[in-house]
Amino acid sequence: MKEISNLMNYRSGVKVVDATLRDGGLVNDFYFTDEFVHDLYLANLKAGVDYMEFGYKADKEMFDVNKFGKWKFCNDDDIRDVVGDNNTDLKVAVMADVGRCNYKNDIIQKSDSPIDLIRVATYLNTIPAAVDMIEDAKKKGYEVSCNIMAISNSREGDLKVALDILGKSPVDVFYIVDSYGALYPEQIARIADTYLEFADKYGKKVGIHAHNNQQLAFANTIEAVGDGVDWLDATYSEMGRGAGNCAMELLLGFLKNPKYNVYPVIKFIEEHMLKLKAEGVVWGYDLQYLMTGLLNQHPRTAIAFTKDKRNDYTEFYKEVVVQD
Amino acid sequence: MKEISNLMNYRSGVKVVDATLRDGGLVNDFYFTDEFVHDLYLANLKAGVDYMEFGYKADKEMFDVNKFGKWKFCNDDDIRDVVGDNNTDLKVAVMADVGRCNYKNDIIQKSDSPIDLIRVATYLNTIPAAVDMIEDAKKKGYEVSCNIMAISNSREGDLKVALDILGKSPVDVFYIVDSYGALYPEQIARIADTYLEFADKYGKKVGIHAHNNQQLAFANTIEAVGDGVDWLDATYSEMGRGAGNCAMELLLGFLKNPKYNVYPVIKFIEEHMLKLKAEGVVWGYDLQYLMTGLLNQHPRTAIAFTKDKRNDYTEFYKEVVVQD
Repeated sequence: MKEISNLMNYRSGVKVVDATLRDGGLVNDFYFTDEFVHDLYLANLKAGVDYMEFGYKADKEMFDVNKFGKWKFCNDDDIRDVVGDNNTDLKVAVMADVGRCNYKNDIIQKSDSPIDLIRVATYLNTIPAAVDMIEDAKKKGYEVSCNIMAISNSREGDLKVALDILGKSPVDVFYIVDSYGALYPEQIARIADTYLEFADKYGKKVGIHAHNNQQLAFANTIEAVGDGVDWLDATYSEMGRGAGNCAMELLLGFLKNPKYNVYPVIKFIEEHMLKLKAEGVVWGYDLQYLMTGLLNQHPRTAIAFTKDKRNDYTEFYKEVVVQD
Repeated sequence: MKEISNLMNYRSGVKVVDATLRDGGLVNDFYFTDEFVHDLYLANLKAGVDYMEFGYKADKEMFDVNKFGKWKFCNDDDIRDVVGDNNTDLKVAVMADVGRCNYKNDIIQKSDSPIDLIRVATYLNTIPAAVDMIEDAKKKGYEVSCNIMAISNSREGDLKVALDILGKSPVDVFYIVDSYGALYPEQIARIADTYLEFADKYGKKVGIHAHNNQQLAFANTIEAVGDGVDWLDATYSEMGRGAGNCAMELLLGFLKNPKYNVYPVIKFIEEHMLKLKAEGVVWGYDLQYLMTGLLNQHPRTAIAFTKDKRNDYTEFYKEVVVQD
């Protein structure tokens, strides 16, 4: 059984990344109030969270700034308004999607930015473009991670080639991303083995970003940490696209490093997340997400089902189970 | 890694037990409509479920029959009204609690009863009484399982003594019961090892009954099946006391034996479970259950919090974290 199986102890290299604004922003088009973001920053500080992801660096040529909240774009000044000089242990992260980020312009020199970590998100078929973004961000002075999305329907051989290319790049962390919430803990164990093989070879770290379609986001995350994965994504009240993510409150309850504290998370949920839900923002486990997870499909059909306030689950099942 | 890690295949000895009426009955005092119960029986038949637990054989001297629905008492005639002669592959189970069942009278000869399986529920400190019930039921001709409850706060030495005593009894199945939803998959792996050691020694099977306080009921159940646990409890829409149980729809989605079929489960949920929820019957994962699970406590305080429609999670946390 696993090294961390000594459940009474902890591994100091573990890092917790709060992805609430970024993955949660996919649910409400990033329309968070300033108070929400400010309080989330304070809650993360008190909870001992290691990184707070503020949102995306989305290309303003591609996305209309009037149709999204500001955290889809993460202007450095907007982050600065929240964190000031950020003389804290909580580091600032943003995500930059391959093909949807004007990184050469919008990601400035680290020395002029409140951002610490650039998270490059890519599919398997755009690894060279991801490497270009990684190199750019590294040269500018950032920590850089790379999220390889939707690996549950990738071929293992392709994944290994991608990890080898990324291993040779200056990226710091490879992320396992279960975009469809399709993976079981035993599969996570095997995937973590593969990632760690390349991480060890090239001196990188491994992270995990899970989705909760089968109520396994937390289980897969603690499986991964037991396998040697160090970077763990979580969100408050598991807020995130579709079925949501690994809940921060579950994760901090599990981790035994005394620097982590679940109480500020509970307080933030009571003060802010209940309100969001009452306002009609909808996310989290439900049958339609279970079905797309089980079928290893992108949840877009399930998200549409949710938006349409449908509950004819059997009809939905018949729609998604057949793929002509 | 595990034998079942070949996720493309299945182990034919696995049995699925639907505990919706029994554990779900704890949420609504067993007031299910006859239509609900009849349709659940048909759904289980179509889904390939192996056992359907109808409720408790509760002592009518102790519990007022006017204050509960009939499935708290599970008269043989009431079961017969649903299943007729039950010439099917779906077997009928009831639960009998140590100290709360007049088993000498209320459990009749198997040859006169529609019941196949008696599930004896006990705490660690009443094992001899459980053995008396097991022997009584065995003599009458039933299959018998024994659910050892609340093991997350039991001492390992005591548990082993209990398993040794039960091993020498005529019981067929030992059940791992995570009453508080406090256990993590790695702990389940260790507990399953212990149970299987005694099961192998005495020719018994092992089962698992999980609670969802930390969103781990499904994860713990599939961990257990990978460890060699054969009997798996689940409930439709995870209906059960407090945070509920392992969801049948998740479990049948995971199991690969072609005799299982998730579609009838989805259909039943659409037709019946949504209605129950709309009527105000409340169960399932929420922060208060996470907290009692994390603290390895009985969920009674969290159930009261839910009943009182409170959402002052921080106050609740302060109430439960201190135990004078």
